[in-house]
Amino acid sequence: MNSPKKKIVIVGAGFAGLNAAILLGRNRLSVTLIDKNNYHLFQPLLYQVATGFLAPGDIAGPIRSAVARYQTVRVIQAEVCDFDSAMKIVHTTNGSYPYDLLIVASGATHSYFGNDHWAAHAPGLKSIEDAIEIRSRVLKAFEDAERCNDQEARAKLLTFVVIGGGPTGVELAGALAELARGTLKGEFRNFDLRDVRILLVEGNGRLLSSMHESTSAYARTTLERLGVEVLNETMVVGIEGDALRVSTSGQEQQIGARTVVWAAGVQASGLAKALSRQTGATLDSSGRIAVGPDLSIPNYPEIFVLGDMALTKGRDGTALPGIAPVAIQQGGYIARLIIQRCAGKEGKPFRYLDKGMMAVIGRGRAVAESWKFRLKGFPAWVAWAFIHIYYLIEFQNKFVVFFHWAWNYLTNKRGSRLITR
Amino acid sequence: MNSPKKKIVIVGAGFAGLNAAILLGRNRLSVTLIDKNNYHLFQPLLYQVATGFLAPGDIAGPIRSAVARYQTVRVIQAEVCDFDSAMKIVHTTNGSYPYDLLIVASGATHSYFGNDHWAAHAPGLKSIEDAIEIRSRVLKAFEDAERCNDQEARAKLLTFVVIGGGPTGVELAGALAELARGTLKGEFRNFDLRDVRILLVEGNGRLLSSMHESTSAYARTTLERLGVEVLNETMVVGIEGDALRVSTSGQEQQIGARTVVWAAGVQASGLAKALSRQTGATLDSSGRIAVGPDLSIPNYPEIFVLGDMALTKGRDGTALPGIAPVAIQQGGYIARLIIQRCAGKEGKPFRYLDKGMMAVIGRGRAVAESWKFRLKGFPAWVAWAFIHIYYLIEFQNKFVVFFHWAWNYLTNKRGSRLITR
Repeated sequence: MNSPKKKIVIVGAGFAGLNAAILLGRNRLSVTLIDKNNYHLFQPLLYQVATGFLAPGDIAGPIRSAVARYQTVRVIQAEVCDFDSAMKIVHTTNGSYPYDLLIVASGATHSYFGNDHWAAHAPGLKSIEDAIEIRSRVLKAFEDAERCNDQEARAKLLTFVVIGGGPTGVELAGALAELARGTLKGEFRNFDLRDVRILLVEGNGRLLSSMHESTSAYARTTLERLGVEVLNETMVVGIEGDALRVSTSGQEQQIGARTVVWAAGVQASGLAKALSRQTGATLDSSGRIAVGPDLSIPNYPEIFVLGDMALTKGRDGTALPGIAPVAIQQGGYIARLIIQRCAGKEGKPFRYLDKGMMAVIGRGRAVAESWKFRLKGFPAWVAWAFIHIYYLIEFQNKFVVFFHWAWNYLTNKRGSRLITR
Repeated sequence: MNSPKKKIVIVGAGFAGLNAAILLGRNRLSVTLIDKNNYHLFQPLLYQVATGFLAPGDIAGPIRSAVARYQTVRVIQAEVCDFDSAMKIVHTTNGSYPYDLLIVASGATHSYFGNDHWAAHAPGLKSIEDAIEIRSRVLKAFEDAERCNDQEARAKLLTFVVIGGGPTGVELAGALAELARGTLKGEFRNFDLRDVRILLVEGNGRLLSSMHESTSAYARTTLERLGVEVLNETMVVGIEGDALRVSTSGQEQQIGARTVVWAAGVQASGLAKALSRQTGATLDSSGRIAVGPDLSIPNYPEIFVLGDMALTKGRDGTALPGIAPVAIQQGGYIARLIIQRCAGKEGKPFRYLDKGMMAVIGRGRAVAESWKFRLKGFPAWVAWAFIHIYYLIEFQNKFVVFFHWAWNYLTNKRGSRLITR
């Protein structure tokens, strides 16, 4: 069905797209890899950039250097605007690119569930720019508090709210607590760091609701020990400049807070809509495209959708989560499928091998679940650190990240506390 | 004359201001350290951020953590707008701060010698934001060239011009050459990296004119071996969007180039003017304040000006250069002077101990001069690396920077190649 001469266009160099490009390039297939950024982003560590622990460059490696050795792969920095599924063309801000096979994997963005005006007051955490913005807001709140002599205003400056108790929210809240209670110790003269409040707001009855109940309980206890106030069964009703209204089991209250971070909802990249317009593919409530067993769009066997943009089901029939392992496996699957079809063979449907989930709660504290195993505390943190360093291996960053970690663990200092304009 | 109760305000946490604050804090004197940024910047390594080798956070450490242990030092993030030398008050964007003793050390910015409209086309390199801007422009030029099929336009994209053959210009040109000839090797499909042109434009007859002639000659030869075209006795006449006009010994020519970096001239921070308006202090042609032998403004013994903002003379009567060692020594001098005066003693005039100058030309190549000694090549580079790591010791960054360097030296890869928006 496919020959090596076929043009494969990949949109998005995240975990899915980059992995597919590398494997296809290794087999000398002709690939055009398009991304709006010049770097691949290691999203699972974004919260560490947002809290000043890692530098942006530590978790972002140039796409070009990742595929440099594969002569048949070219990288184009451009933003995709639309597709033409009849003419088989991808339109970008910088030219159009024809394809024989199209792989779309441009990820997800935050969703404010219809309250897009919250975005200005409660930025989400999906891109390097998001992380730098949150880092600046957090550090600036402390700077402003140092100069502020009005007690009420200062209390607002020293209150940080994270909305959403999934892995990202838990990791963010834990990292903020360690920043406030540890890293910044002794640096301010005008207030006591014990006045800092960090709240974690979760609509569900427990944190990390996709993990085991005992894991949720451990996460809560550990966060509380770090000084995080956990509000379960609490919905956000409104967010303004320096306050938010929440409703806990029907009871409303106002929380004065200058810094609010959104880690509650995601939706597929806007390109899913563009694809759906072209192909009639169905979108779910999160904007994801329902794909077939081979990750292609129904009736468009030449278009594949991967990663956070795709609605794929696991063995138990529930949708696969939007996490790196799913994207990486899908990228590898698509590459092998295309190679098999080149050889005239038909591939098997995609099956996700669930290796588990993990979340870091603080310095040397994490939770991890894999099959029947559940790890907590330091052993989970060590497992987490090794897995993440392993995955960073593609880029030079493993050494730097490792030393940042080691240094942080020993001293609780932070490497990248810049407020940039 | 001074008691420990006296309020000392320091404007600027560069080499001079931060060093003074640390020494004064160590002696339990009351210090308010004001800076518009929350970080101290290690300016000598800015060119490595601009060329994607180091991350911004690697060369910028939080001011607060540098002085955290000195309880009498408070740090205020604010931008100084003006001074009131009669009332002894510093006015900032975030409140006013009274002083008994004032130390102003807010550094320098670029000077376009009356051609400020060049700034948009030829950014200078003085701040983190400058470095990120230049990095984005350089990397984006390569990205654009990969998509560009018009040969003339591509030639412009692949031409980089550095204006100014002092240490910064030499280091930038060398780092750009290594980026283009080494780091990016094998990453582009649409052009040959040998088509990249890097020009270094210098008005003087030789590079590094403040160093020995043999050093200048070595720098030129080494840069040329790296593929840099050196234009001596060449003045810039005009800079537009994608071209600049230069005049070499009276003969004009046009050079097509999308990326131009300005490393030619500096002038003192605008606060020098504000101080001069208040105190009647004289400014030289670079906007520096002529200070007395104890670095104070004539008739204002309570106001000291340090670092790049001050016009101070060496033993031979020439003005001291705007380099880190001068600023560091002046910061230390002022702190000791104030401490001596607190004890009722009068201090000696400031004397600069000239330890020499150095500049890096490329990977493992540098020049250094100290007293009668002149080092070139790898030994100079080793000396440079050790001295710079030593000075980074105040912050955590020494390990990270060291590993970046070691890694770069072994692999010629780069850690921080982000195009951010």
